[in-house]
Amino acid sequence: MIVSALRWVGGIDGYLEIVDQRRLPGEFVKLQCRTVEQVFDAIKTLAVRGAPALGVAAAYGLVLALQELTGDVGVERALQQCARACDYLASSRPTAVNLFRALDRVKSEAERFAAANNNAATEQLRQAVLDEANAICAEDEQLCRRIGQNGEPFIKDGAAVLTHCNAGALATAGQGTALSVLFEAHKKGKRFRVYADETRPLLQGSRLTAWELLQAGIDVTVVCDNMAGWLMKQGKVDLVITGADRIAANGDTANKIGTYSLSVLAKAHGIPFYVAAPSSTFDLDIETGEQIPIEERDADELRFVGDGQVAPEGVDVYNPAFDVTPAENITTIITDRGIIESPSRATVAQHFK
Amino acid sequence: MIVSALRWVGGIDGYLEIVDQRRLPGEFVKLQCRTVEQVFDAIKTLAVRGAPALGVAAAYGLVLALQELTGDVGVERALQQCARACDYLASSRPTAVNLFRALDRVKSEAERFAAANNNAATEQLRQAVLDEANAICAEDEQLCRRIGQNGEPFIKDGAAVLTHCNAGALATAGQGTALSVLFEAHKKGKRFRVYADETRPLLQGSRLTAWELLQAGIDVTVVCDNMAGWLMKQGKVDLVITGADRIAANGDTANKIGTYSLSVLAKAHGIPFYVAAPSSTFDLDIETGEQIPIEERDADELRFVGDGQVAPEGVDVYNPAFDVTPAENITTIITDRGIIESPSRATVAQHFK
Repeated sequence: MIVSALRWVGGIDGYLEIVDQRRLPGEFVKLQCRTVEQVFDAIKTLAVRGAPALGVAAAYGLVLALQELTGDVGVERALQQCARACDYLASSRPTAVNLFRALDRVKSEAERFAAANNNAATEQLRQAVLDEANAICAEDEQLCRRIGQNGEPFIKDGAAVLTHCNAGALATAGQGTALSVLFEAHKKGKRFRVYADETRPLLQGSRLTAWELLQAGIDVTVVCDNMAGWLMKQGKVDLVITGADRIAANGDTANKIGTYSLSVLAKAHGIPFYVAAPSSTFDLDIETGEQIPIEERDADELRFVGDGQVAPEGVDVYNPAFDVTPAENITTIITDRGIIESPSRATVAQHFK
Repeated sequence: MIVSALRWVGGIDGYLEIVDQRRLPGEFVKLQCRTVEQVFDAIKTLAVRGAPALGVAAAYGLVLALQELTGDVGVERALQQCARACDYLASSRPTAVNLFRALDRVKSEAERFAAANNNAATEQLRQAVLDEANAICAEDEQLCRRIGQNGEPFIKDGAAVLTHCNAGALATAGQGTALSVLFEAHKKGKRFRVYADETRPLLQGSRLTAWELLQAGIDVTVVCDNMAGWLMKQGKVDLVITGADRIAANGDTANKIGTYSLSVLAKAHGIPFYVAAPSSTFDLDIETGEQIPIEERDADELRFVGDGQVAPEGVDVYNPAFDVTPAENITTIITDRGIIESPSRATVAQHFK
């Protein structure tokens, strides 16, 4: 079974169901979000995470905002409500580009609908907003599936795969990106083993990726991040596959901290390194990875695990959320459009022609 | 201030004082061990750890075992008591070679003393045992200092140093091995920055190394293990220095898991990689690192941090305690005898001539 991060339940009066990722892997609990505030909190507190999932959650949040209007208040009033909810939801994760993009898209559709139907009932506008949110969700599912299908041939029967962080169904409304490749290979009956880097500091690998793969019946072994090189040295890894947060025009790829180290280790051991991501991850306005800003996160992510203190109080910490893997360390980028072998300015441009 | 793992307090009726490393970095508490059982428990539960510190703790444990004898029971009876205590202490950590070696050494000295003085009082034997334990402790202090002095020239003013795990004073009765190099450089007034890998799964880097360096007034920054490559890529690391658990005749070095990955990353970035260890760490009967057995530890070390579950229940885990860094990845090995540049069968043999 593949467990996606969220889904809309019911019709125009329905609700958003979210897998509460704060409680994984200990407990599998689904949250029912029936108000825009509940969606805001779920995003803010990381009950839902992963760029595509955040976009879809926010889009459905706008439907919930419109549900608050009782009776037929007119499209003007409904548009105002929608705009306020957009600003509110956008403030939940100030660096989440997918979230802003989804909100803008739904808001534009609401405005377009209102302009074309200025005598429409509030409920009709609400239906238009739900339709657009559903469209974003369905597109995400399809993108995920295509990435999986395009990447699946790289997983040979009997292979051992190393992955980092969580680029799975729990990060999307569909079946993930890097993990979608594995799910498609599994559907085809291929047998393979996955090593999941635990991915400090937030442990998305051990908490989420390992959980997802277990649910799907895929053979998974958790390792500490520092074990990857030793696994490779022993011949226990045939390929590495990760997701991506942002890809520059030359193929340089920002992804979860630790991805760069893995790419260097893979290269040193002659192991292919794959990146799987929707084509929307490319930012063609950015020439190289050097222009990608790296967010630094809270020092307490390293000083504490849960309630347990694991470093001296007040000690200096360096905690970049991402690093940048140069294109020359990447064997192939897999997208919903196909694959980019030996990523470079030329091959990326060709992919988007 | 440099805080060693332990010290003997008082004379023949004294006690063993141990820094309780289970409670670091949250609390700095010293345990007073007044019985051999307390020493056993301290070793067993990792209140004290690190090969040299374990040897010294066990040696003093024999003094405490002899303190239990009341009145003058004769050397035969005292020797029996000593032998029983040896077997008991040796069972506390079944793979700790230094511990066995220290116990054997003190026991042999007790036997030698008894043979030469068969009319001696129990208290005289006890004094001989204490003298031998003190000698082991003093030798360890001196070894540590020499390693530091031999390695200190490699730390240039303004350098940034990356270290892994804990090869510090908390692992020895002296000022450590890899960290001794840093302590000596600090004494000389050199300014430098240390990045301490947190070192999953047991976090000796963030819990112990960071704490030690802070106590000594050395600038330290904690990083996750998976950040090392990204630090190097940004030019933030001038050299790597680690300890060693066992070194083969050709210079291949077993050390805490993650050391091998670091050595590959350092090589790929043209950064020198130093190993600091007492010459007793060499096992010249072992030709290469391939003959060094790698202990696998409990899966729950990865599944839990403190009481917090961080991986799905029952998920497969790979948890090797050590890995082996090939000699060609090591720039220089620093010992109490001097240094081995470009370690190989020939240069190691030369070092021990």
